[in-house]
Amino acid sequence: MLLGLGVVYDFPKYSIFQRGLIQVLNIKVEKAKELKQKPDFNNLGFGTDFTDHMFMMNYTEGQGWHDPRIVPYGPITLDPSAMVLHYAQEMFEGMKAYKTEDGRALLFRPEKNIQRTNVTNDRLCIPKINEEDMLQAIKALVSVEKDWIPTASGTSLYIRPFIFATDPFLGVRASATYLFMIILSPVGAYYKGGINPVKIWVETEYVRAVKGGVGYAKTGGNYAASIKAQMKAKERGYAQVLWLDGVERKYVEEVGTMNVFFKIDGEVITPALEGSILPGITRNSVIELLHSWGISVTERKLSIDEIYEAAEKGTLEEAYGTGTAAVISPIGQLNYNGKIITINDGKIGELSQRIYDTVTGIQTGAAEDSFNWTVEVE
Amino acid sequence: MLLGLGVVYDFPKYSIFQRGLIQVLNIKVEKAKELKQKPDFNNLGFGTDFTDHMFMMNYTEGQGWHDPRIVPYGPITLDPSAMVLHYAQEMFEGMKAYKTEDGRALLFRPEKNIQRTNVTNDRLCIPKINEEDMLQAIKALVSVEKDWIPTASGTSLYIRPFIFATDPFLGVRASATYLFMIILSPVGAYYKGGINPVKIWVETEYVRAVKGGVGYAKTGGNYAASIKAQMKAKERGYAQVLWLDGVERKYVEEVGTMNVFFKIDGEVITPALEGSILPGITRNSVIELLHSWGISVTERKLSIDEIYEAAEKGTLEEAYGTGTAAVISPIGQLNYNGKIITINDGKIGELSQRIYDTVTGIQTGAAEDSFNWTVEVE
Repeated sequence: MLLGLGVVYDFPKYSIFQRGLIQVLNIKVEKAKELKQKPDFNNLGFGTDFTDHMFMMNYTEGQGWHDPRIVPYGPITLDPSAMVLHYAQEMFEGMKAYKTEDGRALLFRPEKNIQRTNVTNDRLCIPKINEEDMLQAIKALVSVEKDWIPTASGTSLYIRPFIFATDPFLGVRASATYLFMIILSPVGAYYKGGINPVKIWVETEYVRAVKGGVGYAKTGGNYAASIKAQMKAKERGYAQVLWLDGVERKYVEEVGTMNVFFKIDGEVITPALEGSILPGITRNSVIELLHSWGISVTERKLSIDEIYEAAEKGTLEEAYGTGTAAVISPIGQLNYNGKIITINDGKIGELSQRIYDTVTGIQTGAAEDSFNWTVEVE
Repeated sequence: MLLGLGVVYDFPKYSIFQRGLIQVLNIKVEKAKELKQKPDFNNLGFGTDFTDHMFMMNYTEGQGWHDPRIVPYGPITLDPSAMVLHYAQEMFEGMKAYKTEDGRALLFRPEKNIQRTNVTNDRLCIPKINEEDMLQAIKALVSVEKDWIPTASGTSLYIRPFIFATDPFLGVRASATYLFMIILSPVGAYYKGGINPVKIWVETEYVRAVKGGVGYAKTGGNYAASIKAQMKAKERGYAQVLWLDGVERKYVEEVGTMNVFFKIDGEVITPALEGSILPGITRNSVIELLHSWGISVTERKLSIDEIYEAAEKGTLEEAYGTGTAAVISPIGQLNYNGKIITINDGKIGELSQRIYDTVTGIQTGAAEDSFNWTVEVE
C-alpha cells in the first residue's frame, strides 16, 4: 500500500481480483449439533443476533495464515495479556448479504471490503490476507448460513470480518499472532418507516481523526474515540455528529460513522480522501452512480461556512450520509455553534431517494446490476 | 472530569483520596491450586511472565461494579462480538511495585494512576471506578503475589490494571458491561547495562494524536496507531520516534510512549498538556523534583526548529524521555528530515542521571521519600 512514503487512502487500483490469481483455501467445516431458534425476521435489530456458525483462521509469524475453519458460533478464549485488550491492534469490515426474490444470495462489491482490509492491515501492521482467500471464507460461511438471510424489505445478513492481535505480551509492538474471524448477524431495516432525515450536531470540541493518524483505516480506535461526541449529540437531541477536520476545524469530514455528501446549486460535493476519512464503499458506489447519471460530483475540501452560506443563499439542496448500515441517511437539520439550518424543509431530497432506491435495488437483485457490483454466493 | 465543555487533561485536583472517603471492597480470593515455577529473576524480560493470580471485577449497567475477586491467572472467555474486539472501547494503566532492602513492598504514587484511570474512562465513556476500591484491589493482588516482586537492581513487579467493553453487540455506542482486571508481571531492568542514550527518529509523516482526540487518555487506540511509525524508525536503525503535533507538524509532543524533556541553556522544557499528550506520572514527578531542586521547568510549546537552533548554538544540553518502564531514557541523537544532531556527545547528562538515581532511589526505598510518593503494601 506504500508508494514511497505516501499512503494510499482510497482503494488500491490493482489487486489479485484483477490479476486473476486464485488460491483455494481448504476450509474445515464443523457443523453445530443443535441449531439456534431464529429470531423474528420481521422484527430484527442491528448486531444483536448471531448465526449458528463462525469462520476462524489463525496467523503465526513464520507460518502465515493457517487453519481456516467454520465452527459452531461460540465464545473464544484469550489470555488476559492478549495485545488486543491493551493496545487495540485490531481491524474490522462490515458488509451485507441480501436474498433476491428468486432465493439467490448476493454480496455487494465484496472485493472492495477485502481490498480495504489490507489497506487497514497495512496501517495497523497486521499481516495481509490473501484477497481470494478472504472472499472464499466469506462465501463459504454465508453459504452455510443461507437460511439466516432475511427477506423482508430492508433486511439483510450483516457480515463482520475482523482481525485482532493475540500475543500474550505487554510490550508495545506488532503482535506475532492474530485471529481472523467472520461472524454473521441478520439485521432489520435501518429505518423502520422508510428513510427519514435526521438532525445532526456539528461537533467543534472533539475530533475524529487527523491526517497522519488512522482515520482512513477501519480500526477500533477510531470508533472508541467517537463515542463521547456521539453521546453528547444524543443528549442534546441530535441523531449524530458532523465531524470537522482536526487541523483547521472547519472542513467537514464524516457524519457519525458515515461519509457525507452535500448538494449545492446542482453540484454534489463530498470531502476528498486525504487520510483522515474512511474510503466508504457506499461513498464510492454513490460517486460512480452519480457520474453514470451525468451528475457532477466533486471530491474536495468543503467548509462548514460554505454550507451555511449556501443555506443562506438558498442553494443548499440536499445532504446525506452514506454507509453500509443505512445506505443513505438524509440530513434534515444542522446545528453549528447554536446556529440551526434546515435542509430541503427537513424532507428527503429527490436525488437522495433516487440513490437509495437504485443502490438497494441493485443490492437485492430487484434492479439491473449494470455495474457488475453484486457477487452471487452459490 | 468535565468543566463546562472543557476537559481536564492533567490529573484532577480533587479526589476521594483528599476527601478521605473510604469504601471497603469485599474481595473474594480463590487461591491457585498449583503455583507456577518463577522465572529467573536475574534475567527478566518485559511483560512476558505473569504471576499466579489476577484480579477481576465486572460492571453491569444498573448494578455498577460488582464481584471483585482474585482468582488463578488464566484465560478469559469472550463472545466474538464483544465490543472491545471491534470498537476498542478499552483503557489501561501501568505502574510498578518494588521490594525494599528490608523486604517491604512499595507502590509509587498509585493514586495518580487511579485518578488518571477515571480521566481516561471519562473520555472513553467507560464507567468510573471508585478510587479507594481500585487502590484496595491493587494492594490486595500485590499482597497475594509479594513473592513475585524481584529484588535485583532495576527489577520490579509491573502492575497492569485494564478495563474493556464486553457487550456482545455490533452497534457503535458505549458498552453496558465491562471487565476490570489487574495482572502482574515481574520485569527486568529496562537497560541491562545501565541507562544509555538512544537514537531517535523525528517523525514527519505519522501523527500520534491531536487535540480533540484521545491523546491524553491511556487507551489502546493511541498505541495501535503508533506501531507503524515505531517500525519505520526501527527499520532505519532508530530506537523510537519523536512525535510532532498533528496541526502544525512542528511542536514536539512525546517520544515513543514516553513524555519528553529538553534542557536548553539551563532551562528544562517539556510540552504543555493541551489534550494530545499523556499526563505521565513520571513526567509529573520529574517536574516536582526539579522544582524542589530549584531548577526552572517550563511547560510550553517547543518546536523542533527551536531544538535544532539550540543544538547549533551549543545550548542544547540534555534531552530525555520519561515513563514508568524506563523512568528516564536519555536521547543521544535526533534525525529530523535527514539532519542529525548529537546531544551531550551521545552521553547521559548530569541532570538525567541525577533524576534517574533519585526517582529509582525513592521507588525502591533506598532514598528518603520526602515527597511521600511511596505507598506500602502490607
